Amino acid sequence: MVRICVSDIGQWQGQQVNLCGWIERIRRLGQVNFFMLRDRTGRVQVVVKSDTLDHGRFTNESVIAVKGLVHAEERALGGFEVHAESVQLINRAEPLPLSINNPTIQASLDTQLNHRSVSLRHTRIQPIFRIQAALVHGFQRFLDGEGFTQVFSPKLVASGTEGGTELFSLPYFEQRAYLAQSPQFYKQMLVGAGYERVYEVGPVYRAERHDTARHLNEYISLDLEMGFIRDEHDIMDLQERLLHSMLASAAQESSPALQQLQVELPEVSKIPRIPLSEAADLLKRRFHYAGQHGDLDPKGERLLSQYAAEELQSDFLFVTDYPQAKRPMYTMPKAGGTTASFDLLFRGMEITTGGQRIHDGGQLQAALEQRGFDPQGFQHYLEAFRFGMPPHGGLAIGLERLTALLCGCRNIREAALFPRDRHRLTP
Amino acid sequence: MVRICVSDIGQWQGQQVNLCGWIERIRRLGQVNFFMLRDRTGRVQVVVKSDTLDHGRFTNESVIAVKGLVHAEERALGGFEVHAESVQLINRAEPLPLSINNPTIQASLDTQLNHRSVSLRHTRIQPIFRIQAALVHGFQRFLDGEGFTQVFSPKLVASGTEGGTELFSLPYFEQRAYLAQSPQFYKQMLVGAGYERVYEVGPVYRAERHDTARHLNEYISLDLEMGFIRDEHDIMDLQERLLHSMLASAAQESSPALQQLQVELPEVSKIPRIPLSEAADLLKRRFHYAGQHGDLDPKGERLLSQYAAEELQSDFLFVTDYPQAKRPMYTMPKAGGTTASFDLLFRGMEITTGGQRIHDGGQLQAALEQRGFDPQGFQHYLEAFRFGMPPHGGLAIGLERLTALLCGCRNIREAALFPRDRHRLTP
Repeated sequence: MVRICVSDIGQWQGQQVNLCGWIERIRRLGQVNFFMLRDRTGRVQVVVKSDTLDHGRFTNESVIAVKGLVHAEERALGGFEVHAESVQLINRAEPLPLSINNPTIQASLDTQLNHRSVSLRHTRIQPIFRIQAALVHGFQRFLDGEGFTQVFSPKLVASGTEGGTELFSLPYFEQRAYLAQSPQFYKQMLVGAGYERVYEVGPVYRAERHDTARHLNEYISLDLEMGFIRDEHDIMDLQERLLHSMLASAAQESSPALQQLQVELPEVSKIPRIPLSEAADLLKRRFHYAGQHGDLDPKGERLLSQYAAEELQSDFLFVTDYPQAKRPMYTMPKAGGTTASFDLLFRGMEITTGGQRIHDGGQLQAALEQRGFDPQGFQHYLEAFRFGMPPHGGLAIGLERLTALLCGCRNIREAALFPRDRHRLTP
Repeated sequence: MVRICVSDIGQWQGQQVNLCGWIERIRRLGQVNFFMLRDRTGRVQVVVKSDTLDHGRFTNESVIAVKGLVHAEERALGGFEVHAESVQLINRAEPLPLSINNPTIQASLDTQLNHRSVSLRHTRIQPIFRIQAALVHGFQRFLDGEGFTQVFSPKLVASGTEGGTELFSLPYFEQRAYLAQSPQFYKQMLVGAGYERVYEVGPVYRAERHDTARHLNEYISLDLEMGFIRDEHDIMDLQERLLHSMLASAAQESSPALQQLQVELPEVSKIPRIPLSEAADLLKRRFHYAGQHGDLDPKGERLLSQYAAEELQSDFLFVTDYPQAKRPMYTMPKAGGTTASFDLLFRGMEITTGGQRIHDGGQLQAALEQRGFDPQGFQHYLEAFRFGMPPHGGLAIGLERLTALLCGCRNIREAALFPRDRHRLTP
């Protein structure tokens, strides 16, 4: 007999089924036991006569296979329960290192992360990564529909810091390699190679020593780059539709997970855009906050998001026209020392950086030299600009940040299955 | 006026359009020039009156924007041509390092790879990665439909060689990290964590010094793992349907690319399964080839594929029941010293390794110790087996190998956008 999943149980009323899963909870009431059986699709109560069981062997989180009859039972979760004819113990669980069947999580984040294969079973944790997967699907499907090609660029690179961050470094046979801080150069080369529109979902690396609630040393970047744009507003326009589609995908594919976490998805239509200089004025005027010159610090991001929510009724805000000094050398300059660039703030935090890039090879080389880079170290990148490069731009979304902010996680580590930080390299 | 793409041009007959792209070829015929314009969707001939142009400025592979009228013209490629009213030079190309508008590629593979942003424009190269993207979509979509969750596991790991390969190693703050050779342990932990069915598309690393046409030091692994299987045949059954779906996706999404490369997609329905011991007998009997004891070497793989094609009318062949010594320690043992494992051969090469895994914690620890591993180094992995682990198994497909074999590439490097090998770390 084929195994059925808990979510399908209503179709089997009055019939015999096979279920498999974990025992989330055991209640013993004299002659009858109630097992709460959990599989990947949900939970159902299993009624087990005591005389069929050797009690001590069944423990919380043990894996079992149940054969039984499906009964309608309005008092049971989901409206059905299963009357077991047999229960087979497949894999017995030892006492757990943390409790996972309380409504709230009582272990510290460190304990949760140390015992990830247990903590991930909790109803407040498991859904996070179903929502994350749905967001990624939304990203991929939307861009597939827009004529983008999914690509895979190497994470082992020969050099080429884009500046602004520290790199992990390792010996690569007789050479020295670095872990890529972004697929930026490759995305651009692939636009020029004729794909025009490319995206990548993959890991990126930052060897920075920070130890904050908003940084990881390895994270998943949702990257895209597109050719033949007019300016950076084309990229922002695209991101509005992209976010709309990603959130629609989350709503459609992970609706039970969203309900479990009581997540309210934000509306995305037209996202307000404000140049950084105006944003700085606004911070001073409204919040008496001076912040960082020519950039936004975390507090500035929070206050601006507060302003957007209160005054513009938007969970999102584009901050545009960053000064050249605060942007990578490949950023397209604009008049007045600013650039064709933007950050996207969401609920108090930057989740996207993007903009138009320089597409003229001579201009790019000059920009490199002006920053003190040796063009020799960038020859493969620069070459792509000598043989026909369209105007182009793109963006990168930090997947864990977006997930964390949507799901209401206070620490970005909660939105990574196995986070890597300053001190954590396991599990 | 909005830019239109070449593939849509038939809808604009008699109307004025804006096109953007690269000049693939220039023919000058006195008063008239013909530009072959290429964009991401195709090619169209643009007729340009000479007096509107400063000839010398337009070069092959320069990026242009054309405004013009669409005319039906049966002698032209695709049945249409565009009579230009204006041609704007957006980005001028220098003389190319290799020719890309001959029907065949005349540069060496090294030259192609050194100038990847140029060589990728060739009609024999560009399609490879469109087909690759379609295969990945097929993988993702099929598994989404089967209740799998897409996951992202870290590529920086603390230890845990699975054995059998060398690892890249690097300093990670005060610790030592390794680049993951596979997401194997994480996939299994996530099955146990209640997701039951997970897949990952991501890079994996092998620090091996080989320098062959079938190995890369960084490649993309299409990984999946599923719980509550009966045995390894459940995984092989799944792979049959998965491959069918991936090839259907390639046929549907990358049909022009398949035509350009004249790729004939193989049929996948039921794939023959042959135990390794029988395969060894067959190699001796039919091909007088002794090969490697208890394993298949490249020549053995080729001969067995030849047998499958000739006798079983199949481009695919599962070789099953490998001996324990040739499989990782987590492989489920079977009677007679064999294992619940398989390789999938496709057109002469192994493209998948898979099987059932040990799910009993005690058995797994014994298997570790028997191989001489210190269980201390595997404590996080082993922990996942102490708190309820279902029977499970999975597989990994090498994306570049599958792509190369489908597309008829002779070297796996042709199926990686920016391959990493013993000597190559750029571009």
